[in-house]
Amino acid sequence: MILTGKMPVLRSALMIRVAIIGASGYTGAESIRILFRHAEAELTYLTALPEECGPVGEVFPEFRGRCRLDIEPLDLDKLSQSADVALCCLPHKVSMGFVPKLLAAGVKVIDFSADYRIRDVQVYEKYYQPHTDQANLAKAVYGLPELFRDQIKGTDLVANPGCFPTGAILAIAPLLKQGLIDPGSIIVSSVTGASGAGKNPSAKFHFPNMNENLFPYGIGVHRHMPEMEQIAGEAAETKATVLFQPHVGCFDRGILSTVYCQPKQGVKAEQLLPLYQDFYQNEPFVQVGKTAPAVKDVAGTNYCHVFPALVKGRILAFSAIDNLVKGASGQAIQNMNILFGFEETMGLK
Amino acid sequence: MILTGKMPVLRSALMIRVAIIGASGYTGAESIRILFRHAEAELTYLTALPEECGPVGEVFPEFRGRCRLDIEPLDLDKLSQSADVALCCLPHKVSMGFVPKLLAAGVKVIDFSADYRIRDVQVYEKYYQPHTDQANLAKAVYGLPELFRDQIKGTDLVANPGCFPTGAILAIAPLLKQGLIDPGSIIVSSVTGASGAGKNPSAKFHFPNMNENLFPYGIGVHRHMPEMEQIAGEAAETKATVLFQPHVGCFDRGILSTVYCQPKQGVKAEQLLPLYQDFYQNEPFVQVGKTAPAVKDVAGTNYCHVFPALVKGRILAFSAIDNLVKGASGQAIQNMNILFGFEETMGLK
Amino acid sequence: MILTGKMPVLRSALMIRVAIIGASGYTGAESIRILFRHAEAELTYLTALPEECGPVGEVFPEFRGRCRLDIEPLDLDKLSQSADVALCCLPHKVSMGFVPKLLAAGVKVIDFSADYRIRDVQVYEKYYQPHTDQANLAKAVYGLPELFRDQIKGTDLVANPGCFPTGAILAIAPLLKQGLIDPGSIIVSSVTGASGAGKNPSAKFHFPNMNENLFPYGIGVHRHMPEMEQIAGEAAETKATVLFQPHVGCFDRGILSTVYCQPKQGVKAEQLLPLYQDFYQNEPFVQVGKTAPAVKDVAGTNYCHVFPALVKGRILAFSAIDNLVKGASGQAIQNMNILFGFEETMGLK
Amino acid sequence: MILTGKMPVLRSALMIRVAIIGASGYTGAESIRILFRHAEAELTYLTALPEECGPVGEVFPEFRGRCRLDIEPLDLDKLSQSADVALCCLPHKVSMGFVPKLLAAGVKVIDFSADYRIRDVQVYEKYYQPHTDQANLAKAVYGLPELFRDQIKGTDLVANPGCFPTGAILAIAPLLKQGLIDPGSIIVSSVTGASGAGKNPSAKFHFPNMNENLFPYGIGVHRHMPEMEQIAGEAAETKATVLFQPHVGCFDRGILSTVYCQPKQGVKAEQLLPLYQDFYQNEPFVQVGKTAPAVKDVAGTNYCHVFPALVKGRILAFSAIDNLVKGASGQAIQNMNILFGFEETMGLK
Repeated sequence: MILTGKMPVLRSALMIRVAIIGASGYTGAESIRILFRHAEAELTYLTALPEECGPVGEVFPEFRGRCRLDIEPLDLDKLSQSADVALCCLPHKVSMGFVPKLLAAGVKVIDFSADYRIRDVQVYEKYYQPHTDQANLAKAVYGLPELFRDQIKGTDLVANPGCFPTGAILAIAPLLKQGLIDPGSIIVSSVTGASGAGKNPSAKFHFPNMNENLFPYGIGVHRHMPEMEQIAGEAAETKATVLFQPHVGCFDRGILSTVYCQPKQGVKAEQLLPLYQDFYQNEPFVQVGKTAPAVKDVAGTNYCHVFPALVKGRILAFSAIDNLVKGASGQAIQNMNILFGFEETMGLK
Repeated sequence: MILTGKMPVLRSALMIRVAIIGASGYTGAESIRILFRHAEAELTYLTALPEECGPVGEVFPEFRGRCRLDIEPLDLDKLSQSADVALCCLPHKVSMGFVPKLLAAGVKVIDFSADYRIRDVQVYEKYYQPHTDQANLAKAVYGLPELFRDQIKGTDLVANPGCFPTGAILAIAPLLKQGLIDPGSIIVSSVTGASGAGKNPSAKFHFPNMNENLFPYGIGVHRHMPEMEQIAGEAAETKATVLFQPHVGCFDRGILSTVYCQPKQGVKAEQLLPLYQDFYQNEPFVQVGKTAPAVKDVAGTNYCHVFPALVKGRILAFSAIDNLVKGASGQAIQNMNILFGFEETMGLK
Repeated sequence: MILTGKMPVLRSALMIRVAIIGASGYTGAESIRILFRHAEAELTYLTALPEECGPVGEVFPEFRGRCRLDIEPLDLDKLSQSADVALCCLPHKVSMGFVPKLLAAGVKVIDFSADYRIRDVQVYEKYYQPHTDQANLAKAVYGLPELFRDQIKGTDLVANPGCFPTGAILAIAPLLKQGLIDPGSIIVSSVTGASGAGKNPSAKFHFPNMNENLFPYGIGVHRHMPEMEQIAGEAAETKATVLFQPHVGCFDRGILSTVYCQPKQGVKAEQLLPLYQDFYQNEPFVQVGKTAPAVKDVAGTNYCHVFPALVKGRILAFSAIDNLVKGASGQAIQNMNILFGFEETMGLK
Repeated sequence: MILTGKMPVLRSALMIRVAIIGASGYTGAESIRILFRHAEAELTYLTALPEECGPVGEVFPEFRGRCRLDIEPLDLDKLSQSADVALCCLPHKVSMGFVPKLLAAGVKVIDFSADYRIRDVQVYEKYYQPHTDQANLAKAVYGLPELFRDQIKGTDLVANPGCFPTGAILAIAPLLKQGLIDPGSIIVSSVTGASGAGKNPSAKFHFPNMNENLFPYGIGVHRHMPEMEQIAGEAAETKATVLFQPHVGCFDRGILSTVYCQPKQGVKAEQLLPLYQDFYQNEPFVQVGKTAPAVKDVAGTNYCHVFPALVKGRILAFSAIDNLVKGASGQAIQNMNILFGFEETMGLK
């Protein structure tokens, strides 16, 4: 990547220009970090709310001296002139207020919010709020490359998946696709690192409260539950029911998902590992382990480590991802690579 | 507690004398810590393997200047003369080699190992090794006061429960006792702090490996699974099946257990909290929360925080304990208090 | 301790009644925790700002079921009737607004703020703000028992020392008292755990920022610097100059202080350890190690571990304390024990 | 970087081939991680002790699926044929047994051990052991690019600096070079993350011991002390004396060094920041902050953040580095880039 600033730089004809909308949060920072290493993408425009603007090296001290761009308030004209694609790192509800404008400005959009993930508006509105951009919702593609790579190629609007759904679905996709489990029996028990809570300080995430702690939250109401059900159902080609229970632990990065489900009759322990290895053999970012995954092995990477087992008549499927990479910014750039025909792993290996 | 050493001390007529066998590990240290504050128990004798002996303040720098006892190799005559009760903190297999001798020396025994917990010898031998002390096994009482308080009162040998079973059973005991769940549907998904691994260094628990990490282990083979099944079955008065999956996280103390199970038809969300509050209303160490528990709230205490919920037709029951206290040394001293007729909370409030 | 609430309880004639003013913060919680175990003190009255009031078990979930008191807004009449001593856990400036009223209500006061620590009003006003209670300032005793035990006995107002000064002064008190170092050469380099920042969430202490981090702060301006100079000067009976640099690390509790200073000519390495052992031999809470201290060894205790060394012609003196215990609430209760003639270690062993 | 394995790959004419000797430890892993992103270097050969060999993805689960190389026992012929440069990640003493053979095999060597850092054999032998390769010692260049860039360009053997000396020297190099401090007054007080202890499990670094802990070690005897003195002396062009005290804290990566020293008369606070900014203005990896550095800001990067201050007549200079990157593998690859005429930041931005 070439870091542009006030000085003119030579740019490869191949290079695409990337804007990050809502660049001041953790997924913005992670996107910047990945794009530093991307050979075919140039970071050209960073925006945030006025009170969060400033030189990148001041907003994020870890980028001191590494990037000459400023984070600025969004100007759609400037966006239109300076970018080919926008990573939209805004929160849900806010995002669907901006995405139509970004698309109208002529850029492709990879949206990090939930606003374009849930195809059934009624489900969306039950868990979130009234949907104000149903036209684009109908066109958006769910950006999980392992299941929807072909659809992603042709779209202008990618709904980048939620972090928990990414881990949970990759843990059981081979089973769902092969129809080996009862799609009504899925229990997803996950533990996320605390970066999942975002950048705003709060009592629960105050260090002396969160350190040495682990607790469940969002009992029965977490918004990633319907997202999991939608994608699991599409993979299984039938209605799926998912009971999802998230927990948060005292580490920065990573999600460990343990999925419990009921195999169809006749499923044998020894067929699981070959099934997974076969299903994921050409996937650049999913690794089937010989043992269970650990969040630290994938921290800072776009990899997902998965492992299935059959215990006492039930299937346990494990996955580990980095919530900020494969669960957010890394997957977004994987999607960007697919959109623009780059090698899918560019900037991510 | 009076700290005895070389100097003569006055001792209350009421005071019992406590030995710790295998005092050099984490549960030994935690037992010492609790007994410092016990008004009716005097720590008189500490033993360990020869290579782990020495002044308490050198074996455990945190006790520097706080205890004048030495940790010594076990001498059964000395034990016989100096203690009324032994906390036996040895590992399984080793423990059943010593417990008969401790009992023969005339002391009551509270055993921390698994050797006297599993009543069915065949089950024990499947998960552990041949049992060499079946006579005492038949007499031992499972030391979970909330379910077996009356039996504990009259015994000479308490099998102190495993840490995971303590948390898991307390999370669902009200449901089991009331017959409100299908006892074949129990899934226990737990995360323990790293002190659960004990004192010996290993690659997995080397700080740079364990820090910022969380991973599952013991898939399908963890030895606390049959212990949970036994106690759950006794509580439900029918055979229970438990799928237990432990994970370990990067914190010192605590176990968060999330139990997923199938309610019997007609069970309603609104009856759960009153049921739990009623069931535990007289229990000094079980607190029913209005929200889900957090491991940090119980760290360093003998408390168990529990919380039930009904989500999507399934019951979720949560519990948090400190694995070294309610999951080991605290529960042992709670049992000791019951054995000797002390106030049950003595030294533990 | 007897936990009073709505029900009448019998109280020992010996028991003193303790109020905590500003009970909703970390030092309030730590004081409550210690008083649970105190045989001669009864917690009778807890106050806080109206928005932080409520049942103790709701303000602090870790005390759920352990204390029936409510935290209430301060009422001086009620204080007067219900307490013999007040632990005043208010911040500086706020504290000196209340302490005169607490004293006028007829209770002894142990004040946790800096308001009564700095005897020179000009120094206080340079680092803090105008002093509004100089009358009581003149009477207050600095509550470091190891240096000022006799004066503490007779006072009504104890200025409980700062956490950093406690660790720093105990690390070098034997040297100061014996005149073995140049009092103008003292450099105190300390690392505190994050609980030192208090209960209010902030960006710096947001878990994803503070975790895996360590950084200096308060460069040249930390308010514990003049406090150290005052006490060091009194101990050395001459003017002392202290350069104090605090850092904060990613752990909950503890302060490790490394003090660098210049020995007077002729000081030998081999005289240091005997000097320290002799100086602290009768101190119940200061332990001289054979090796350097570690914060975890003193976490949760009122102990201070110290160790001196002579390296390359300079003296290094180390100390470790728990900032919330020996650095705040534990030392306050040690002072309370001295004030009321109890065994000094009561509730603290 | 192109990952070579059993399949033939096209290699750029410009590409250099890199071997890592002793690849199974933390600095080996970090070197691999960086080389994944290097555009002009190809990782061709990885060696370790036989018991630590195997596919990279098994030795390091985080590299599962990312590298097809095996770690093999060292074969000098194979090295000679497959590499242009060797990163020698062996411990001191072992290293000087291999380096002559590596050089004889015709590869340039960047050595991570201390064996070629200390120019004065007597000093080396006092802190380490007899030196067995004084011939190469005389030719080695100390690989701190900010001070010795020109010498590095022409050498075959780079002595990659120690982690603590890197941080300490960069913190005060501008002062030393300008003669603004008394070179006899330098005190370096550092805190390192626990990865500094290496990969072998030990009691001190067992998670339950190291977590929530911070302690000093190596009092008066740490081997980086003479290394600091040598480089400080060369920078100041006079003999320097350094008192170095390391501590270890409960985080993975990073060293925060706080250097205390005596300014020459007349040095003013306001000249420090401009001096540092000027001195480091062309350095790609040293950033002068407006505030003090934090280890998390540099974790995972090759950057060093520095900040000077003048307090009470003394200078405080702070630096933060990642001990595994700028303190080891990153600096090695920076040196490699200099050796081979690549852009100095390649693979490291």
